[in-house]
Amino acid sequence: MFDPLLLPELREMLLENDEPAMREFCDVFHAGVIAETLEALTNDEIWRVLLQAGLSRQVEIFEYISLQRQTELVTCLDKPHLSTLLEVMAPDDRADLLQNMVPEHVESLMPLIAQAQRSDIRKLLSYPDHSAGSIMTTEYASLREGLSVAEALAQLRTQAPNRETIYYLYVLDEARHLHGFVSLRKLILARPETPVADIMDRDVISVRVDEDQELVANRMAKYDFIAMPVVDDQGRLVGIVTHDDVIDVLREEATEDAHRFGGVLPLEDSYLSTPFVELAWKRGVWLVLLMVAGFGTAGVLNYYDGVTANLEWLVKFLPLVLASGGNTGSQSATLVIRALALGELNRKAQFHILRREAATGFVLGGSLAVLAFVFAMMYGPVMDAVIVAVTIALVVTLGTINGSLLPMILRSLGMDPAIMSNPLIASLSDMLGVLIYYNVALLAVGRLF
Amino acid sequence: MFDPLLLPELREMLLENDEPAMREFCDVFHAGVIAETLEALTNDEIWRVLLQAGLSRQVEIFEYISLQRQTELVTCLDKPHLSTLLEVMAPDDRADLLQNMVPEHVESLMPLIAQAQRSDIRKLLSYPDHSAGSIMTTEYASLREGLSVAEALAQLRTQAPNRETIYYLYVLDEARHLHGFVSLRKLILARPETPVADIMDRDVISVRVDEDQELVANRMAKYDFIAMPVVDDQGRLVGIVTHDDVIDVLREEATEDAHRFGGVLPLEDSYLSTPFVELAWKRGVWLVLLMVAGFGTAGVLNYYDGVTANLEWLVKFLPLVLASGGNTGSQSATLVIRALALGELNRKAQFHILRREAATGFVLGGSLAVLAFVFAMMYGPVMDAVIVAVTIALVVTLGTINGSLLPMILRSLGMDPAIMSNPLIASLSDMLGVLIYYNVALLAVGRLF
Repeated sequence: MFDPLLLPELREMLLENDEPAMREFCDVFHAGVIAETLEALTNDEIWRVLLQAGLSRQVEIFEYISLQRQTELVTCLDKPHLSTLLEVMAPDDRADLLQNMVPEHVESLMPLIAQAQRSDIRKLLSYPDHSAGSIMTTEYASLREGLSVAEALAQLRTQAPNRETIYYLYVLDEARHLHGFVSLRKLILARPETPVADIMDRDVISVRVDEDQELVANRMAKYDFIAMPVVDDQGRLVGIVTHDDVIDVLREEATEDAHRFGGVLPLEDSYLSTPFVELAWKRGVWLVLLMVAGFGTAGVLNYYDGVTANLEWLVKFLPLVLASGGNTGSQSATLVIRALALGELNRKAQFHILRREAATGFVLGGSLAVLAFVFAMMYGPVMDAVIVAVTIALVVTLGTINGSLLPMILRSLGMDPAIMSNPLIASLSDMLGVLIYYNVALLAVGRLF
Repeated sequence: MFDPLLLPELREMLLENDEPAMREFCDVFHAGVIAETLEALTNDEIWRVLLQAGLSRQVEIFEYISLQRQTELVTCLDKPHLSTLLEVMAPDDRADLLQNMVPEHVESLMPLIAQAQRSDIRKLLSYPDHSAGSIMTTEYASLREGLSVAEALAQLRTQAPNRETIYYLYVLDEARHLHGFVSLRKLILARPETPVADIMDRDVISVRVDEDQELVANRMAKYDFIAMPVVDDQGRLVGIVTHDDVIDVLREEATEDAHRFGGVLPLEDSYLSTPFVELAWKRGVWLVLLMVAGFGTAGVLNYYDGVTANLEWLVKFLPLVLASGGNTGSQSATLVIRALALGELNRKAQFHILRREAATGFVLGGSLAVLAFVFAMMYGPVMDAVIVAVTIALVVTLGTINGSLLPMILRSLGMDPAIMSNPLIASLSDMLGVLIYYNVALLAVGRLF
């Protein structure tokens, strides 16, 4: 397991240029632990250590290094060595790395890479971001239907060394159409002479190569697979998405949704490694938009200038009234956006949800109105408290409806519902809140607006 | 794969009481697909279909049914049958189900369950919620160090039928101390006479049984395991957490964090299946708290009554000023909370983050102040615009610092940083915003407060 003492030891090896020790270091520990320790060194030092290991071990460790650091590291390596490294890398990790590199650098490398890997790279790079194709690997184990268990195991042994997972074997015909799959567990347990056809699963759950990675994650979560086959529109197997990639997708999507919902354009890298200017920009864009909305609210208040002058006490409760709408709206939006992300809401459920949210809003609005009435009585006359309470009831009910409706509208327009961010809902609800508050007040004091 | 036509077909089988067809239905499709289809039926109908299948297949399908529905289903089954079902279920799924059942029902079942399973149940139920122990299973494959590959494979074949995963074999001594592990891939590729000790990994990455499930998920994500061993404080293997459980944990934790951050107490079940009253309560608790905070802000405004009377124009920009602080605060909180959840921020990084957030706030505050100045000029004199701009600069900078600082403080107090919800940050920032706004105005008009 990760040991904080590894780093000083490693630094000493580098100082003494103790190559046998470095070689041993690369062999003994888990590749992930080694990568973690290496990341604290300079790029040159990392290569000095890594190059002590055999090529396949080099690649294994390299694949655990963060993508951003990988991109830096490849610039320090001569092209022949780099192209060998790329040839051995897992296709999906390789595609991720190449996508992150300077395009000119990639193009200058391509001629040095073997034909088979080159066309694999071109293929994987052609799938759009966030599609099943963009996260899959092309290294899967496959076999023909006619084999026996013993033959299948023998064939698997020849495929195994360079397959990402050998725990599922996909049964294909000559045109690579997917007919079924068999787990290694079943093969191990079956008698050697059993035909694979007798024990394979024919009800294969797969995804199309152009489907969204979130769908892949939801389906993997539902069916508990180690890997999910990816097929083209003809039903031909083109790759697999493995459990570890799905975990990455889930973390990535949860982070993106959280960022969007918090009013930040999603970051490409981790929070820590995002440059200052990029971070400021990704927040600034939203803040400027929200400020424009804020000036809309200022415009509304400007319009009601005369009311403020006559009913000055309204100001006291203004932040409270606006916050109540924003808070319930953001609650509803959170619940709906998260349920949509988990694939829980189909079209039929949406109407049900909307009715239920409206009812919840009504109940919450009523209860908060009572509370607000009691509080407001402490600051002024009954009439003022009535105005505040009625406004709260309306603002909360409408906030709930807006908060749940807007993400669903966005989803049905084919947009990501999570862009209905918390601050945006709060801003919209501010404007609506001012309108309701002032009109309730005007109605109550008998001057219909 | 899931087929919407399965349900009408199944209903017809039930109508005609076509038992052979039901049996075939339970055999042909993926257990997850069957479970999904069954959930549309009544509890009695589900059992009529399920009981056609053999016991192990019944359990396989049953385990894919949602926990809530499982809890309903067990109440319709006689105790002897139910105890048999429980005996065959996977230990982790069984523990989840029992935890969800009425305690009296569980206790009345216990005597009917075989001794070995009974003590396994007691053990698993004793681990606290959200701990590694609460999500692990006790069905792992293990072996002694002295064996050869051929012997290990033979032993695995006897263990395999009732082990959750057989793709990692854990190497234990007599006291069950974990010494290493070997993957089935390595066993398949090695020569039969090779000693397991020669090919096993000795740098085992594990978690302690009382560690948080989020840590398990983060470690699995980092090292790409199919399963992670769980050890007690003596280093003895007590269970494993498998990839599918980690996917569930990630989805659950992301949902909880989103709910908390949106100002809703985390739901136990899915959004759709949470009862109305529970949902209203879990939102209402927060809303009441936030309303109290809102009345705090009203109190501050009440205190500055005289200022509002003299500088009535301040009101126009009040929502804008308060929203600016809330928006930047919630951005910062989102970024920090998410980075903490992903395990990206250690103690050293926290100071760095705080400095960077303050700098970001300064830059964003400055830019927004300029924008606000230009906008505000459209509504009034230069002096008013200056007051608004200076307030925005201060509120935004402080909002950034608060938004990033508060989650870190909560974390260092051992609390979940995600309870620093968006609405709570907005509320705190409202009160601070009013104080800053009015004092800047008082300063500017030359009457020091």
